[in-house]
Amino acid sequence: MNGAQRTPMTPDELEAALRQIGAERYHSLHPFHDRLHGGHCTREQVQAWALNRYCYQSAIPRKDAALIARCDDRDLRREWLHRITDHDGLEGEEGGIERWLVLTDGLGFDRDYVISRQGALPATKFAVEAYVRFVAERTLLEAVASSLTELFAPNLHKQRISGMLESYDFINEKVVAYFRRRLDQAPRDAGFALDYVKRNARTVEQQQAAMGALTFKTEVLWAQLDALSYAYVSPGIPAPGAWRPGEGMRAGVEAAA
Amino acid sequence: MNGAQRTPMTPDELEAALRQIGAERYHSLHPFHDRLHGGHCTREQVQAWALNRYCYQSAIPRKDAALIARCDDRDLRREWLHRITDHDGLEGEEGGIERWLVLTDGLGFDRDYVISRQGALPATKFAVEAYVRFVAERTLLEAVASSLTELFAPNLHKQRISGMLESYDFINEKVVAYFRRRLDQAPRDAGFALDYVKRNARTVEQQQAAMGALTFKTEVLWAQLDALSYAYVSPGIPAPGAWRPGEGMRAGVEAAA
Repeated sequence: MNGAQRTPMTPDELEAALRQIGAERYHSLHPFHDRLHGGHCTREQVQAWALNRYCYQSAIPRKDAALIARCDDRDLRREWLHRITDHDGLEGEEGGIERWLVLTDGLGFDRDYVISRQGALPATKFAVEAYVRFVAERTLLEAVASSLTELFAPNLHKQRISGMLESYDFINEKVVAYFRRRLDQAPRDAGFALDYVKRNARTVEQQQAAMGALTFKTEVLWAQLDALSYAYVSPGIPAPGAWRPGEGMRAGVEAAA
Repeated sequence: MNGAQRTPMTPDELEAALRQIGAERYHSLHPFHDRLHGGHCTREQVQAWALNRYCYQSAIPRKDAALIARCDDRDLRREWLHRITDHDGLEGEEGGIERWLVLTDGLGFDRDYVISRQGALPATKFAVEAYVRFVAERTLLEAVASSLTELFAPNLHKQRISGMLESYDFINEKVVAYFRRRLDQAPRDAGFALDYVKRNARTVEQQQAAMGALTFKTEVLWAQLDALSYAYVSPGIPAPGAWRPGEGMRAGVEAAA
């Protein structure tokens, strides 16, 4: 897959190669997810996960606006726009970021604390910003291809919904609404992006760039779980200034579970 | 230190506040450094550290060029320039990056592998790029202040030189040349930058921005050691695609110590 290949793949071979990257590198394989979905996280670990993941969720509209901002293709801009509103909401629809805040509400956090990101791990913020910049600076093909982790998201979300509802008494239908909604949204978006990449990545160089972009994106996701595991599972040393259990709770919410 | 303070500190009070950030957050406090300097690292862990840290070292000239690139003050540009040549070298002087490669040579790495950064942890690359971008995008005062971790570097380097020479039979004077040289360079640079910040951070907002910049920089350094610890100490799971012991060695160097 690196360098040696001098004949372009067919579109279907490219799809298979992209799916293989997911099979090998998507963060569904990260040990933290086994712990989270299997009910082996403490409440504090679920809190730390939701708090840090907010940084990622809240950056998605900036990431998608960065793609639109460098795109001369009106059709692609029109198609891509709903990704912003899916997360930011529009008129009567609250959007995915609001649904994520319902999750952090359910975990007892003060909303202003979550939104400030002051308790997020530096490593989370670095990874998220690397993603926004990648989309702003690389080719449009790479920007689109980096979204293809959504191909692999529905299975993860299904596991998450059933695993978390079953395992944690502080998780209910209301707080998993984000993931339920993504079960419909992600396949539509991933299908479009996959089709775009298959149509536009025709040379060896383009195909390798697309695969590199998807690999990069898996690194962005994986690095966040590594940081979370180090800070809150083992050895469990949050970086100086990062959230510590009990911080950032709403008035009236008990600090410890 | 956050928000409540409405009267600017004197320059000496600001210096004390900046030094306090170092006392609380500099990565000399990270458990990985106790392990490294105390002789408790395996050879593979020292290799992983040197390989990843190369990413940081090699980005320093870009970081310093980013500062010069947005600086209208000719005197400051002239003063700052030697930081680039300190690392890149000039004419007969090989520079700090070459000295770092002597260290990775000493650890058995193939130079092309190190320079390619292909085995570096994604989290390392994200942190390093966050630093380059911070310097390119924030105010000049913040860009200068973010260099102030050099105030705290000489003590760390002294510990490192003596600790590593004493503890590891694969470390000798030749490979610690980088750190010996920084014992002279860092205090000169830090003294200039500290003086600049003390003269230019006069309002509460400027002083808080300078402190925020130094705090950010400590996060950049700390996050790299968190990632290293997670991947190579405990639990010891490198991210997919990251260096695994034995990879990237020169021909003729045994893979395992």
